[in-house]
Amino acid sequence: MLNQTNVRLGKVRSSIRELFEYGKKRRAEIGAENVFDFSIGNPSVPAPDDVKKTLIGLIENTDPAELHGYTSAQGDYAVRKSVADNLNARFSTGLDADCIYMTCGASASLTITLNALLNGGDEVIAFVPFFPEYKVFCGHAGGTLVPVACDGEFQPDLDDFAAKLSKKTKAVIINSPNNPSGVVYGEDTIKKIVALVEKCAQPVYIISDEPYRELTFSDAAVPFIMNYYKRSIVCYSYSKSLSLPGERIGYIAVNNEAEDFGEIYAGVLGAGRALGFVCAPSLFQRLIARCAGQTSDLSAYKANRDRLISKLTEYGFTFAKPDGAFYLFIKSPDGDAVSFAERAKKYELLLVAGDDFGCGGFVRLSYCVSPDMIERALPAFEGLAKSYNLI
Amino acid sequence: MLNQTNVRLGKVRSSIRELFEYGKKRRAEIGAENVFDFSIGNPSVPAPDDVKKTLIGLIENTDPAELHGYTSAQGDYAVRKSVADNLNARFSTGLDADCIYMTCGASASLTITLNALLNGGDEVIAFVPFFPEYKVFCGHAGGTLVPVACDGEFQPDLDDFAAKLSKKTKAVIINSPNNPSGVVYGEDTIKKIVALVEKCAQPVYIISDEPYRELTFSDAAVPFIMNYYKRSIVCYSYSKSLSLPGERIGYIAVNNEAEDFGEIYAGVLGAGRALGFVCAPSLFQRLIARCAGQTSDLSAYKANRDRLISKLTEYGFTFAKPDGAFYLFIKSPDGDAVSFAERAKKYELLLVAGDDFGCGGFVRLSYCVSPDMIERALPAFEGLAKSYNLI
Repeated sequence: MLNQTNVRLGKVRSSIRELFEYGKKRRAEIGAENVFDFSIGNPSVPAPDDVKKTLIGLIENTDPAELHGYTSAQGDYAVRKSVADNLNARFSTGLDADCIYMTCGASASLTITLNALLNGGDEVIAFVPFFPEYKVFCGHAGGTLVPVACDGEFQPDLDDFAAKLSKKTKAVIINSPNNPSGVVYGEDTIKKIVALVEKCAQPVYIISDEPYRELTFSDAAVPFIMNYYKRSIVCYSYSKSLSLPGERIGYIAVNNEAEDFGEIYAGVLGAGRALGFVCAPSLFQRLIARCAGQTSDLSAYKANRDRLISKLTEYGFTFAKPDGAFYLFIKSPDGDAVSFAERAKKYELLLVAGDDFGCGGFVRLSYCVSPDMIERALPAFEGLAKSYNLI
Repeated sequence: MLNQTNVRLGKVRSSIRELFEYGKKRRAEIGAENVFDFSIGNPSVPAPDDVKKTLIGLIENTDPAELHGYTSAQGDYAVRKSVADNLNARFSTGLDADCIYMTCGASASLTITLNALLNGGDEVIAFVPFFPEYKVFCGHAGGTLVPVACDGEFQPDLDDFAAKLSKKTKAVIINSPNNPSGVVYGEDTIKKIVALVEKCAQPVYIISDEPYRELTFSDAAVPFIMNYYKRSIVCYSYSKSLSLPGERIGYIAVNNEAEDFGEIYAGVLGAGRALGFVCAPSLFQRLIARCAGQTSDLSAYKANRDRLISKLTEYGFTFAKPDGAFYLFIKSPDGDAVSFAERAKKYELLLVAGDDFGCGGFVRLSYCVSPDMIERALPAFEGLAKSYNLI
């Protein structure tokens, strides 16, 4: 008998990946221009020109045996130093290279961190709505995900959080700007979360999963967890900020103010070994050392957001206005997310049913797409709205 | 309490990585030219020129959002097809794209495969000497590594193998050309291994870990496991053949003749998800589609091998003559590997004590180094030999 947990995970797939594959098939069948794929967070804005120039410069001017060689397991020293320096400059932290562990992207950052922290039976709290793979990652690491409810604006329900914290709580995952709602948690919320965590008798770790940190559309600052809580770990990826999702490059930053910093970092190193991550891809590590402070031109996402908010509101759809990331979390007119997503497919609109995000009755729309596609998709949204008698 | 297994793994490190870090420190202290680092399998032969040209061509001529975007979890279809076609052409198999799962290198191939196959309490057999991380990977997947002894030429002791096969055996790992001994298992050995496995009442999977497949120095063919056994899985990496160890690119090929092929492949997909491998790095996937059939100029390794065999024999050291990979597994003159490796350090020779390979009394020498360094290191080897009164 094979490992049935993993066989099942492989057969079912995540709802997002499932729809991604369906979209590929559908484009082949009826033409790419006729499919309106809002399913996945694959950035439509290209990587900055500097990424292209830097990659070519590295490949042309570096000894290939050095460029493509193994780095230290935790990442090249100069790369880690540049990441630490960049964080220190932005958030007034005192991190050094040895607080940083380079990873193969945000999912790897999370699985490594969870495997460093968890023992069998531990609980990990996440605020709904949350990225569905959190549950898979916690399960593999021997833990259980405990969802905490949100209010109507997708902000954490702090009473429910207080009720869910227990002796078994090992970690709390914060994801702001949030996938799938796009909302940002303000400083007041972070402070309240920290205050509740500090009441626990046992050490509780706060993991900030923040691949969307730079994708904000208002002046709302995204508080940096290390400035509020010592036992904190930041999981980051350049997938969204530099439009490099397929290249798998990110990092884990462990707060060196944590009393057990050395243990946490050792756990991260050990978990990276056990999971089979030898080092993060070396060419892209070197790219990061040179481009850590840059971002793609993210203004296109704001334009997309504004256009969609305006038109979808006109068509009668409802959702919380997102301050960041590139998602809209839309309420199903009849309260059923699966049937809403299925009906949308008839209009060639690919939207992810949000039940897996721990929040029934909503679908996720990723608007990291071309403005063109949005314009072409508007009649489909209008048709979908009419089918529900919204207009 | 953090996960103590992973904390310990992070603190102890692998003996290879430990020495790799020591070497970096020592080079900074006394100058790179004075340290003779034979510790790690970081290829010294550069990637083929075509790799450089192809990478630059891809970066210059592909839409960056496409080039650096997510691929399917199992890898880009065209990439997987080219890998399958290449294997079919070389080994007369009937694989298709859907038998291939692209990975972040050989360690990822192994951890994903083991997590697909194993349940708690399962046993995995490996033939000594073996890559020490096998034990870590099996342990994380809930299994136990069961070592099988070897003969004086580092070939499997088949009587011991027959004795170690049990109801608990879920998988057998074959690693030929072998790290650390460099020996190749001939067809006769493979057939005998398969015959013993076929006597088991339960399904047993053979995993062929073969990153050194193309690194052979004699006419000795390396049998392709799928031609001998149906329940077989090949774990591969381009680290050595294309000199890209830091880029983390490889694959898992599942034999589509296995009765439970669909279950195995689903388990691989699921394990990849649970471990946090979203997809293999996309730029290097695309490179592989264009360069899968090429190798670096591997003749330098043969020259290194021949030079070292000649001189180390002259100095009185003993080892099995390797037919492949780029390692010599040298017998410690006093039978103690750790003291041998420590004494070598006094001569600035970095050799890995082989006890972790499951085979006491040997050190591993990686000769994927520059011929220059070998010449500079010869007096050190001579001094080391004299200190043991070998000459």
